[in-house]
This record gives sequence, structure tokens and C-alpha cells, in this order.
Amino acid sequence: MGRGGRVRLAVALVVAALLLWAWRGSDRHGPVTSHSTRGVGAPVEGRELPLIFIGGVPRSGTTLMRAMLDAHPDVRCGQETRVVPRILQMRQHWMRSQKESVRLEQAGVSKAVLDNAIAAFCLEVIVRHGEPAPRLCNKDPLVLKMGTYVLELFPNAKFLFMVRDGRATVHSIITRKVTITGFDLTSYRQCLSKWNHAVELMYQQCKTLGPTRCLLVRYEALVLAPETTMRRVLSFLDLPWDDAVLHHERYINQPNGVALSNVERSSDQVVRPVNLDALDKWVGQIPADVRADMAELAPMLSVLGYDPWANPPRYAASPDVSPDRSPGQSPGQSPDQSPVQVPNDESPRAPHPP
Amino acid sequence: MGRGGRVRLAVALVVAALLLWAWRGSDRHGPVTSHSTRGVGAPVEGRELPLIFIGGVPRSGTTLMRAMLDAHPDVRCGQETRVVPRILQMRQHWMRSQKESVRLEQAGVSKAVLDNAIAAFCLEVIVRHGEPAPRLCNKDPLVLKMGTYVLELFPNAKFLFMVRDGRATVHSIITRKVTITGFDLTSYRQCLSKWNHAVELMYQQCKTLGPTRCLLVRYEALVLAPETTMRRVLSFLDLPWDDAVLHHERYINQPNGVALSNVERSSDQVVRPVNLDALDKWVGQIPADVRADMAELAPMLSVLGYDPWANPPRYAASPDVSPDRSPGQSPGQSPDQSPVQVPNDESPRAPHPP
Repeated sequence: MGRGGRVRLAVALVVAALLLWAWRGSDRHGPVTSHSTRGVGAPVEGRELPLIFIGGVPRSGTTLMRAMLDAHPDVRCGQETRVVPRILQMRQHWMRSQKESVRLEQAGVSKAVLDNAIAAFCLEVIVRHGEPAPRLCNKDPLVLKMGTYVLELFPNAKFLFMVRDGRATVHSIITRKVTITGFDLTSYRQCLSKWNHAVELMYQQCKTLGPTRCLLVRYEALVLAPETTMRRVLSFLDLPWDDAVLHHERYINQPNGVALSNVERSSDQVVRPVNLDALDKWVGQIPADVRADMAELAPMLSVLGYDPWANPPRYAASPDVSPDRSPGQSPGQSPDQSPVQVPNDESPRAPHPP
Repeated sequence: MGRGGRVRLAVALVVAALLLWAWRGSDRHGPVTSHSTRGVGAPVEGRELPLIFIGGVPRSGTTLMRAMLDAHPDVRCGQETRVVPRILQMRQHWMRSQKESVRLEQAGVSKAVLDNAIAAFCLEVIVRHGEPAPRLCNKDPLVLKMGTYVLELFPNAKFLFMVRDGRATVHSIITRKVTITGFDLTSYRQCLSKWNHAVELMYQQCKTLGPTRCLLVRYEALVLAPETTMRRVLSFLDLPWDDAVLHHERYINQPNGVALSNVERSSDQVVRPVNLDALDKWVGQIPADVRADMAELAPMLSVLGYDPWANPPRYAASPDVSPDRSPGQSPGQSPDQSPVQVPNDESPRAPHPP
């Protein structure tokens, strides 16, 4: 190449380098511009994340589920954030008042603006209260009461609805003195009624979310058939199988493991391997008059596949109950979702320790 | 250039183009990565914005001030968001409880995480509830009660503390039936007491923020000497002078103008030009027994330069009171901040309309 050619080559490279530098530099908007260049109402970054939300009435196995998922190398749930349900609840409160909704619209605080603001808050907390991971997860049990709204905020989210025999749940609430707004810890009757109301609300949410978005998981199935159940859960969540989920106790407070909170009531239980100890502690503990009114007090027991007259039911034999099961079917049939079988090689239910 | 030279030139350009494409492409992180690459605890984008916060006890001229600033081409305040003070209040509530603070820390929801989440929420609302502008502003009067916390969230923020003769403020609250939590609209006595408490809280906040961050502005000075006062305000805010701020009424509900809310109590007043009508409507309206106890009921009147025994005081003669005025000084002296003079060319106080 002659001298003229070399010059032209050099010029071309310089021009190319300048173009490169200019193009790259144009990504570096100052903050004001970045905020302003995102179209008004355009979703906050992060709302497209395929978040996992674990919910249910407290004392229904939500911590165990999130601990087992935390053991998966790709997932991080972490502790209950406490604040995510509160901000969602605040929003529900505003939206229920017609007057307030009008005031907010008049203030320019439209649904789109508010949704972005709430999503931004939730994302900051969920993303930053624990270690990063390819798949983020949140476990604040009562968030499922607002499941359909959460799906509006995070349209790629999936939900795990932890369900447990209400009698066991209430027995745990009362004996462990777990404070939950509205639950009178002196009364099994009142607590069962509250449990029924809460689980029904969440059941409706799960049903509305639909089977591709919300999976109902029974605590009893989780502890009696952990591998089968977790295979179902991971498949639902589009996560690859990993044996670590069956040995969550090995990853307590480890990096990329199961972060525990000293103030969470289930921490001292979830440090142990999956076990059957909590299945039937309630048996014989429910007052006789409450037992007599069980079906009437807590109709959701039956809906969820728990026989209100059996103390206790045979949990191992009950299949998973899918929320989209047609009303005419008995608890034994759920064609829309293959029942959780107890395989032969799983240990039979261990005798209840003293 | 020979053929070989042209080939080399082409190759160079292709290589440059490939480099360009590759480098540019590497900026396109998926959302998870973008969220994760921001260091844990690194401030949310937008927290460095030099936001303007206008606060004060409601009915103290806050809407007039924000309307006048809205008339400035570089500024946008917009309507009261209603939700910003609520989320700040929620956070104060959590932080006041030692127990709750511990629970949040245990949950990984540290101060840094929570501050980012709250800031993200506020930014979404403030930035997106109105039109973009080089300088964004928020007017939710009670936010100033949490001024020092707001400064933690937005370290480049500045605050305008609107102050007004408490007797006029309370008269406005009562006669216009403005609902404010804790104010008993049937009692001048109780309302003056509440006014005193609220204005004292905000005064302390303003004082702690300091004179470079918080400017106390008297409503009376704003309406009696609007140009002098606004020159002081714009200088404090590092904004260039613009005559439009003296004619805010020309920009009502215009693009880049003054957006009003139908449900805000001052909207029907702020559509008018700056005027003196509201200065002394309270005179003769305060019950005699309350007037007799005025200095004791509302000591902040005196602190702020309003003579508790004068009905009404000579507002035009009172200088601005700087929050950092030494306690030993009389209201007439404020060496740390040049007093607002009423220049000769300003119209004298107009007679009170019937």
C-alpha cells in the first residue's frame, strides 16, 4: 500500500475510533436525563424479573419452602423483608377509597406512577436485602393476599402458595404464641375462623392467578415426599433440578445458602433437616367443642383436601389439590395436576416423637 | 490508493465496526445484571438530584410559593403527591421502635437498603407525577417535619420553610374546614396549640438543616414584597431570575406551567395574582379568651417575629427571621441573613376588601 493508502487507512481508523468513543459516551447520561428519557409511565427497570413469591398463612411451611429453595444454587429468597407487605397493604388501602383514588389522580399520581413507585420500592428491598442470584425470591407470607396486584407489578412472577392443615397451623400459632394481626391467641375457635378467612382469600388469589402462575403446595406433601414435591416445584419455576434442595440444612448461613433471621419464629426449626415432627402435634389439643364445629368453622379444610372429622387425616394419601379443580370433584381426583404420589422408596411416616 | 490498499482499508473499517458493535453491545446487560452490578448499598440513581422541597404548616402559603416557582421555566413542582409524606412517616414509625429496627436489620433490610427503597419510591412519584424539568420540586407541606431525614435521602436537596402568622393560619384552617390530623376544627385554642407544636418541629428541622439548606420564608413577606422575596428565594435555590415568577396566574394549567388539583384547598385562590386579601381576615375572629392567652398558647409566634399582642402586627415592617438567629437577639435583628426590606416602589398594603 502506498503512502496515500496508509494515510487513508489511518484516517479511517481514527474516524472509527472517534465513532466508537462517541457512541459509547452517549450511554453515559447524567441522572436527570436518564430519569427524564425514560418515557413517563414506562415501567421501572426490574419489573420484568421472573421473581418467585412464596406465601401462605404464617406457620404453614413457608420458611421451610424458602429455605429449601435458598439451598438451590440459582435461587435466593432470604429472610422475610417485613416491609414489602406493608407497602402493598398501604396501596390497597388507598385504592379501596374512591375519594383517595380521585385525589391521587388529580395529583398526577396515576395508577401507572404509583405502580412504578411501589415496584421500585419492592425491587430495592428484594434485590438488595440479600446476596445477588440469577433467580430472586421473596417470602413474606401475607403478600399472597395481594397476589393479583403483585402480578400487575411483576408480570413474570410466579407464586408458591403454602397450604397446611388449619388445625396444625392454628395449634402452632397458639402454642408458639405467634403474633398475627387479628388472631386471638387464647381461642382455637377464633383462630380457626381467622385461618379459614385468610386461607380462603389467598386461595381465591391463587385461583385467579391461574395454574401457570400459582402453584399450591401442601406442607404435608413437602415433608412426606420432599423429592417428588420439589421436582414439581422446580419444574413449575422453570429451574433445573439440584439435589441441594433436599439438604437445605447443610447451607444454613453459608454464602449463597440459607440466610436466617434471629427474630423469625421458624429459624430454630429450619436449621434441622426436613422432618415429620410437626405433622400431628395438634392432635388431641383442639378443644372438644371446637372439634365438634370444625367443618362449619373451617370449611376451607375440606376444600383443601383435609378431612375436618379425621384427627388426624392420612396426609400421605392426600394428593395435591389444584385450585382449578372443578367443584364437582372429590378431593381424591385432580386431573388437571398429577397427584403427589408417595413413592415406595420414601420413608413411611415416622412415629411421632415424645 | 492501490487495490491492496483499498482491501486493507475495508478490513480496517470492518474491524472497527465490529469493535464498535461489540463494545456497544456489552452495555446491554439484562435487567438482573444491571440491578446486580450496582454495588449493594450503592445509592439509587436520582438521589443526587438537587430537589426543592417546600414545606410548612398547611395554610401557610405553601401552594402560592410552589405556584410561583412552577411559573419559572426551569422548575416543576406540581400538585401535592399525598403519598410522599406517608411513606416517610411509615419509615419514621419503624425507626422509632428499637425492636422493629433490630428485626429489619436481621432481615437484611439495613438502613442503606431501606433508604434506597424509600428514595426510589419518592423519586418515581416526584419525577413522574408531572412534566419533566431541569429542576424538580415537591410540595407536600408536612414533609418538612422529616426534613433532616429527607436530606439523608437527597443530600443535594434544598428546603423552603413557609411560615405564616399562626393566627391567620388557624383562622384559615377553621373557616375553610381544612382537615388536618389532630386539629380540632371547633377550637381556636386547640388549633393554635397544634400549630405551635407543628411549626416548632419544622423550625427545629429547618435550623438543623442550616441556612445553606433551609430558607425560612414568611408568607406575609411573599405577598407584600414578592419581587424582593422571590429574588432571595431564587438566589438561595441557585436559579436565575425570571419575571414569570411574579405572574404565576398567567401559567395556570399551561404546559410547563402551574398544574392544579381540583381537590386541593388553595387552588381557587392561587388562580389569582399575588394579593393581600388573606393577611388579616383573622383579626377580630379569635375568641377573647384565646387572645388573652396568646403568648402562652403559641410562643412560636414571638420566635417567628409575630407580636402575640398585636392584632394584627405590622407585617410589612417585620424582617425575615433566620432560624439561626442567636437567641439573645430581638426579632428586628438578623445579622446572619439580610432582612427582607420592603422597597419604596412596592405597593403599600392595600385596604382589606369587604
